Amino acid sequence: MEYTKPLAKLIEHFQHLPSIGPKTAQRLALYVVKMPENEVRNFALALTEAKSTISYCEECFNMSCSSPCEICSNPSRNKGVICVVAETKDLMAIEKTNEYNGLYHVLQGLISPIDGIGPDDIRIKELLFRVNKNNISEIILALNPSVEGEATSLYLTKLLKPFNIKISRIAFGLPMGSELEYVDEMTLARALEGRVEL
Amino acid sequence: MEYTKPLAKLIEHFQHLPSIGPKTAQRLALYVVKMPENEVRNFALALTEAKSTISYCEECFNMSCSSPCEICSNPSRNKGVICVVAETKDLMAIEKTNEYNGLYHVLQGLISPIDGIGPDDIRIKELLFRVNKNNISEIILALNPSVEGEATSLYLTKLLKPFNIKISRIAFGLPMGSELEYVDEMTLARALEGRVEL
Repeated sequence: MEYTKPLAKLIEHFQHLPSIGPKTAQRLALYVVKMPENEVRNFALALTEAKSTISYCEECFNMSCSSPCEICSNPSRNKGVICVVAETKDLMAIEKTNEYNGLYHVLQGLISPIDGIGPDDIRIKELLFRVNKNNISEIILALNPSVEGEATSLYLTKLLKPFNIKISRIAFGLPMGSELEYVDEMTLARALEGRVEL
Repeated sequence: MEYTKPLAKLIEHFQHLPSIGPKTAQRLALYVVKMPENEVRNFALALTEAKSTISYCEECFNMSCSSPCEICSNPSRNKGVICVVAETKDLMAIEKTNEYNGLYHVLQGLISPIDGIGPDDIRIKELLFRVNKNNISEIILALNPSVEGEATSLYLTKLLKPFNIKISRIAFGLPMGSELEYVDEMTLARALEGRVEL
């Protein structure tokens, strides 16, 4: 079928977003047409505003409107601990736990030879620079338990060892609420391996 | 956690869209920030443009930039058949089958006493007006097999009977690729009821 032109264009734009298929894109576009005019205008404004005002913190490479970002410049944060994550969304996930009060370092990617992403393509140099310059007591690696995450963790551990600081990795194991019976073997193996003495 | 302001605003806007939860909203907003600037601008433009240019066809109440819409004004369409649907998205679904060449009538809702939607709140008057004015040979009711859809179909059938035209309803039954064993009883009952002689 042929959509009326402006609708087709809007559907296409929605479809370019991640996890939005053609059906959802159509549904969202139809919804927008039915929204009050000023809401649509504000939505459009929020899009361009977010794009134009948000950039990256030059210290930790978190997305932010200011550099240093809100976290790096927060005086109540523990400046001696750096949690290393791959992307801003991982930082956000950790922030939501309200369990961490140190700083972050966003690598902006993971080492992935298959995708042609080497150590120099992500913010590793900058991490080493920070560790060198500042008085850091602990580095926490919070990378995904994937091949790329593991490779990057290994690489970082090697590079960070000479600094003689504590290096830790978040625990891999059974997620809360899961059942031993249904958990995959890899997870169970990691849970066994990472067992904690009581 | 606290998002940086423009990001929080954008996430909120995404979250207002149907079927977009907080996690997806965050993911979409982060994606937008990483998109090229001109793409974001075009997206924002497509939003306001779709809203400002699209309205409803005064004939069939389909969403369109023109009135009569592309379908109503298409000379190769069979003007003697009207397919009645609840929403523009239903019209789109039928158009995608490439099996229908008649006109449409979008009711813009279904009769639903629980939600306070009566026959006068949807485009029933306008349908009767069209049937009265034009030379219509068949009305096809293509409303959802829900309580509201059934109620509206019944109501329309009563109103249209006096016009002495053919009134049909799309078939309810087993969807293609389904298995008798797993299909719910209601659907199976309707499939039996609607059996076709071979």
